[in-house]
Parts: sequence; structure tokens; C-alpha cells
Amino acid sequence: MELWFSEYQSKNVRFSVRIKDMLYSKKTPYQFLCVFDTEDMGRIMTLDDVVQLTTKDEFVYHEMISHVPLFTHRSPERVLVIGGGDGGTVREILKHPVKEVHLVEIDEQVIEASKKFFPSLSSGFSDPRTSVFCEDGIEFVKKNKGYDVIIIDSTDPLGPAVGLFSREFYRDVFYALNDDGIMVAQTESPFFYGEFLKRVYSDISSVFKFTNVYTAVIPTYPGALWTFTMGSKSIDPISVNSMKLPEFDTKYYSPDIHKNCFVLPPFVQKMISK
Amino acid sequence: MELWFSEYQSKNVRFSVRIKDMLYSKKTPYQFLCVFDTEDMGRIMTLDDVVQLTTKDEFVYHEMISHVPLFTHRSPERVLVIGGGDGGTVREILKHPVKEVHLVEIDEQVIEASKKFFPSLSSGFSDPRTSVFCEDGIEFVKKNKGYDVIIIDSTDPLGPAVGLFSREFYRDVFYALNDDGIMVAQTESPFFYGEFLKRVYSDISSVFKFTNVYTAVIPTYPGALWTFTMGSKSIDPISVNSMKLPEFDTKYYSPDIHKNCFVLPPFVQKMISK
Repeated sequence: MELWFSEYQSKNVRFSVRIKDMLYSKKTPYQFLCVFDTEDMGRIMTLDDVVQLTTKDEFVYHEMISHVPLFTHRSPERVLVIGGGDGGTVREILKHPVKEVHLVEIDEQVIEASKKFFPSLSSGFSDPRTSVFCEDGIEFVKKNKGYDVIIIDSTDPLGPAVGLFSREFYRDVFYALNDDGIMVAQTESPFFYGEFLKRVYSDISSVFKFTNVYTAVIPTYPGALWTFTMGSKSIDPISVNSMKLPEFDTKYYSPDIHKNCFVLPPFVQKMISK
Repeated sequence: MELWFSEYQSKNVRFSVRIKDMLYSKKTPYQFLCVFDTEDMGRIMTLDDVVQLTTKDEFVYHEMISHVPLFTHRSPERVLVIGGGDGGTVREILKHPVKEVHLVEIDEQVIEASKKFFPSLSSGFSDPRTSVFCEDGIEFVKKNKGYDVIIIDSTDPLGPAVGLFSREFYRDVFYALNDDGIMVAQTESPFFYGEFLKRVYSDISSVFKFTNVYTAVIPTYPGALWTFTMGSKSIDPISVNSMKLPEFDTKYYSPDIHKNCFVLPPFVQKMISK
């Protein structure tokens, strides 16, 4: 039997991958979660039929959402991840000499599935520096403060994640950060969601002193050219001296990529310019 | 009726787009050519069911395959394009003060279809500096010499294009170039064709003094992170002072992007390192 998974990247564009082995599917209280193996993309996790990660290219997303803000801060000790229940972001953060990593994931089942099916991503959950909270991130940041870096590793701005893309939420994130704190959020592809990027950029700019967009290439996400938007309370991200960044065991991130990822193609720069 | 076009990016991965209007399909002596309109990707040309261009993202490919070698050369007067029958590369080259652009496209039907259905790409065919030759590029470079830049704007390394990715061909290209000449070829995505990139890089290195890979993001091509491999007879591409490059009317290319596109993620750098 031929078994294919198809993601409707929009009503009119579909990405399909042949399933080698269906491993898991479960309706959680929040979403429909599946895990399967494929020939070309490795193992895949989907939520509500949207690809969250493939073992083929997850390294790009997880390296870029974590090392760019952490090296921009220089000496982060307490880091908070909102979402990111697969653990990939925590795995990368733990390569830094941080003291504490908090992960707030609303859907416990995502964490459990990752522990079972993605050992290479979820390895950091057993690190003594990691604490996991299965709660709503929006409420969590209102009560918990004192972070150096907050990473918003959310799903697309639909369903339970909508509130993670609001100005009110960014304000709460601001207050949950220390005085030199930095936040970063995944903010979709400018090829398809230019208006969204513009709005989020404007919202984060209204709260933080420095707001910068950087990009990375994630082939299995719609549009592939992916943006991350960073808000910084006092450190100018562009001032980071990439010559002083250590070489790290990474596949996509490097000190030179760090410096270059903030340089946007003119069509993206134009989207966020007033 | 629902009409979808599907490209098998591999045996196990498929990219599909809903067709709004089927405009043209023809079996040429070389390949099966189609043109159709879509909601999300604009107008698309396919050859043998592989997307060649969409009006949504063609600007990335055409700007990057032309401006990077032309600005690296600094004062190109005679430029040869092999393939590229849609005209997009010629359109970009003509933004430079070149004296002559030769285009060698084996399949005249591609040129005719572009003139009819892609006026924004084929505009340069009527420029007095442009000459079009409907011939085999492999034979053409053996007989025609004296170019400053040669751009190999080919289809994937299958069927009629295979010979455009051979060491013998690169040697002929070398001799068709002036002493400070530069060639560039599109060389697929490292996410899926790492071995291919490695082989082409090695072949071009065996012929040219300087060989450099650079990247751009083309969402509708498989793997999205696309490579271009440049061979240069005497100019070191890394020595180009991007501060001296003029601002151009481009959507993806810019002087800063020019400088940065040669910085490869470690996993790509590793592929081409011995």
C-alpha cells in the first residue's frame, strides 16, 4: 500500500511525503499528533497535519532559534523556552554554560512523544539544568520573571498559538526578562506571510528598544526562507563581534552565519520598513 | 474540476500546486513544456514535469545567477548564457553596461513560450545587445570564444543537460573565457544532492584557479537552499569589495547579500572540503 502524508501549505499548495512507517497518532487535548518515518526526510512529527520537524532539517531551526539570541546576550544564565515540546531548542541551549532552562509546553503529549520517538531531540529533558512545565506559556510569563533569554518556539499563528503573537504577550515577555534580556520568536516565511511578519515586527518594536529580523533556510517549512524576530532590551544585536564567537559543534550555525543572518534580501527589508 | 500539478521532487517527495488556468502544453523535440497559472505561485513553466520557474520566486534565481558573477568580474562586456531560454537571466544581465549577450538555448520552443507567456522575463530578447542561438551549448562553447562571463543556466542534470555538468565541458568553458573570465553554474541543493555538488565542485576546481560555492533561497526548487558554483580564471571572488558595488533595482540581490552568499553553513562547507 502506498501511504502518503500531505500538508496543505495553503489552500492551493500541498507538500507530500511518502510514509515508510506510521509510528504514532494521537488526539491530544490540544491537537492531533502524528509521528512517522519517511525515506527522504527521516522521522517527522506533525501537529494538526502541519510538519513540526523532520530529522532531516530540524538542525537548522533549532540551532538558529537558540544560538543567535544566546550568543547575542553573551552570558545567559536563565533561559525560558515557550513551546518547543520536542526538545530540540533545549538541546541546543544546553550546549551553552547556562544555569537553568525552563520549558513551558502546553501539550504534555508532545513532550512524551518526543521522548519516545525523537531521542536525539529530547536528550536535554534529563539534564539537571532543565525544568519542564506543562502549562499555558501566556499565563506562565505573567508569573515567572528574571530570564536572560526567552525563546518563543511556537507552532504557526493558528489555534492555541495565536496568543503567542500578540502585543500584550510581547509586553509580558518584556517584563519577564532581566534588564539586558533578549527574546526571539519564529515568525514564518516572508514569501507567503509578509503581512504577518510586518505586523509582528511592528508589535515587537513597540515594546523593545532593538528589534531585528534574521533568516535561515528550512526546506520543509512553507516558503523555506524562515524568519526569526528578536527583541532586545539593551544589547544591540548588530554590535555583536562575530570574530569573538567560539566555534561550536553545529551544522548550520557558525559565527559567520550569525553575522550574516541579519542581512535581509531587499524584498524582506522592505516589508518591515515603515 | 480540481486541477493540480504535481512534481515528484524525488520518488518519495511531491510538491503540488493547484492550477487556476492551463495555458499551454507542447511536446517539443527535447522535452514536454507546460505553462499554467496558479493562485499562490503566479505563472509557472514546467519542463518534463519539473518546475523551471514561477513568477512568484524567479527573481531570486535570476538575480543571483547573474549579478554575483557580473559584479565579481567588475567590467564584463561579452556575456554568454547557456540554457536559460526563459530569458530571466538575460533580463538581469542587461541591467549592466554590457556590450553583447549571447544566449544558447537548445530548445527554441522554450524561448517562444517565454515570449508569449512570460513578457516580464523575455523582455531582453528584443534588446539590440542580445543574440539568440538555438543550438547545443556543448558544441557552441567549442567554437565561440572571448567571453568575460559564462552563465550555465541549465535544467537539472538529467536528459539533455547531463553534458553541461561534465569536466570536459568546464574545460571548454575555460577556453571560451577571456583571461580574467568567470563562469557560474546552478548546482542544485545540498540538502538532497550533496554528492552531486561535491563532484561538480571538484570538477570545476580541477579546471579553474578559484572555485567558490554560493547560495540563495528558492522556495519552489527541491531543498530550497540552492547552490551556484563559480569558477574564476584570475579574479578571487572573495576579494570583491562589496562597499563599492552600486545599489541596483533588485529584490533579493544586494551588495551585502553578494558578500554574504559565499558564507556557507558548516554542513555545506564540509561537503566540498576535501
